[in-house]
Amino acid sequence: MPQLAYVDGRILPLREASVPVEDRGLQFADALYEVTAVMNGRLLDWDGHLARLRRGLAALAIDFPMSDAALGIAARNLVRRNGHRDALLYMQLSRGVARRDHVFPGAARASLVMTVRRFDFAQRVRQQRTGIAVITRPDDRWGRVEIKTTGLLPNVLAKQAAKAAGAFEAWLVTPDGVVREGGSTNAWIVAGGRLITHPLSPHILGGIARATLIRLAREAQIVVEERAFTLQEALAADEALLTSTTAPLLPVVTIDGRPVGSGTPGPMAARLAALVADEMERQTGWRG
Amino acid sequence: MPQLAYVDGRILPLREASVPVEDRGLQFADALYEVTAVMNGRLLDWDGHLARLRRGLAALAIDFPMSDAALGIAARNLVRRNGHRDALLYMQLSRGVARRDHVFPGAARASLVMTVRRFDFAQRVRQQRTGIAVITRPDDRWGRVEIKTTGLLPNVLAKQAAKAAGAFEAWLVTPDGVVREGGSTNAWIVAGGRLITHPLSPHILGGIARATLIRLAREAQIVVEERAFTLQEALAADEALLTSTTAPLLPVVTIDGRPVGSGTPGPMAARLAALVADEMERQTGWRG
Repeated sequence: MPQLAYVDGRILPLREASVPVEDRGLQFADALYEVTAVMNGRLLDWDGHLARLRRGLAALAIDFPMSDAALGIAARNLVRRNGHRDALLYMQLSRGVARRDHVFPGAARASLVMTVRRFDFAQRVRQQRTGIAVITRPDDRWGRVEIKTTGLLPNVLAKQAAKAAGAFEAWLVTPDGVVREGGSTNAWIVAGGRLITHPLSPHILGGIARATLIRLAREAQIVVEERAFTLQEALAADEALLTSTTAPLLPVVTIDGRPVGSGTPGPMAARLAALVADEMERQTGWRG
Repeated sequence: MPQLAYVDGRILPLREASVPVEDRGLQFADALYEVTAVMNGRLLDWDGHLARLRRGLAALAIDFPMSDAALGIAARNLVRRNGHRDALLYMQLSRGVARRDHVFPGAARASLVMTVRRFDFAQRVRQQRTGIAVITRPDDRWGRVEIKTTGLLPNVLAKQAAKAAGAFEAWLVTPDGVVREGGSTNAWIVAGGRLITHPLSPHILGGIARATLIRLAREAQIVVEERAFTLQEALAADEALLTSTTAPLLPVVTIDGRPVGSGTPGPMAARLAALVADEMERQTGWRG
């Protein structure tokens, strides 16, 4: 069965799905996106993704008339038509097509593209047993990364540097040594039994997996501190973690080649991974 | 005659020209672009644009096998087929199409899109007589804006703010008050007979019009200082200017509503505009 994509109300084979060359997403990165986990054929945390997309639309003053209900129907329909049990749903919403000019076009109609790609979440569960390595890089991104735009080249370069170093992720660090987040994941440390992650700000992307983990941890009586932490603190921490839609919870066992804690996945990571797995099962019925 | 576009070796009507939804330019702003002036049917400063594109390809490790000669033939052919005397040639080169993943894809083939749109350069000559207004905005762009990527959303928002304020451009200012450049133009001041503009750095886009103006000014024995200047200096300057491919030389007469110098275009702007006009005529035969 060919992969199917959605483009402005039409479902068509992915290999035929395209956008006009004057789409503002293509020419200006004037577009938002979301990646949602499809587990057991169901969308995980859909309401959270939708709410973030709506916040982004408001921040960029993009008028998108489709209702939440219609968007949900279109997304679920595309997922069903693609037939994958475990997959990633990618949604991209651009300001539309217009003759090239930086300023907002008067008449453009926002354009929605969705694709679905099979994804192996069980691979991530296996990685929870070994943990992953991160490197660090200067955070040279723009000042509004809380808006989930497609202007991802700095993230691409960071993740490429991580790959070249044999690491899973690059943590982006300020000149003052603050760890903001990874190239496509939020960053966490565990110290004195507390879970610590950078607070929401224009300098991090407020991950849906991040919000879920904060909620689950607090429900389990684990203290969560949303505050900036430094690379030095991370290197002295008991454990470190990262979260994202595509890496729901992974223990970080080395940073720039130096071990975190014991250099192996720790007990807090295991406890949190179990909470996350329970939540996935509750929402989607998925169990590894 | 319909507008024609070029997509990976094919020329087709602009309205049919498209890129696949998994183009990395669309999903990651993993793409470079150039805008070249077409005057009198000829390309202005083509070699400069080509050299900058090649530097960007090297910086992003994008492999693009097309030779300079072949690129020049393709560009000039598209210009000729579109039949405009005065136009803008837009070239966009993405890393190619691949299943979505931040890291560089192994097998993607770089993809080239070109469009040509009629442009009224004479309008800019008329604006030289009245001058234009700029506003200021914090420079919140990423740390590598010397690479001419399509990640332009911060520039879009700056230029939209300028438009909303009735201004032509927004000057992007650091927390220390340094004027880096405009949203799509380089920034200049004139003080004590000297021409001053931000030096080349990762924090400005090294404009082709900027390089040309430095050369022309120096040939005319005008002292050019490539150094950072502050907003305060600009407000106290004799004159201010901006340059770009689409605004070859415009006098800035107000900044945030405050007059620069006399608040009208000054003699240095007129002298430099004449030098730029002569250079355009020399290269393309164009004369207003």
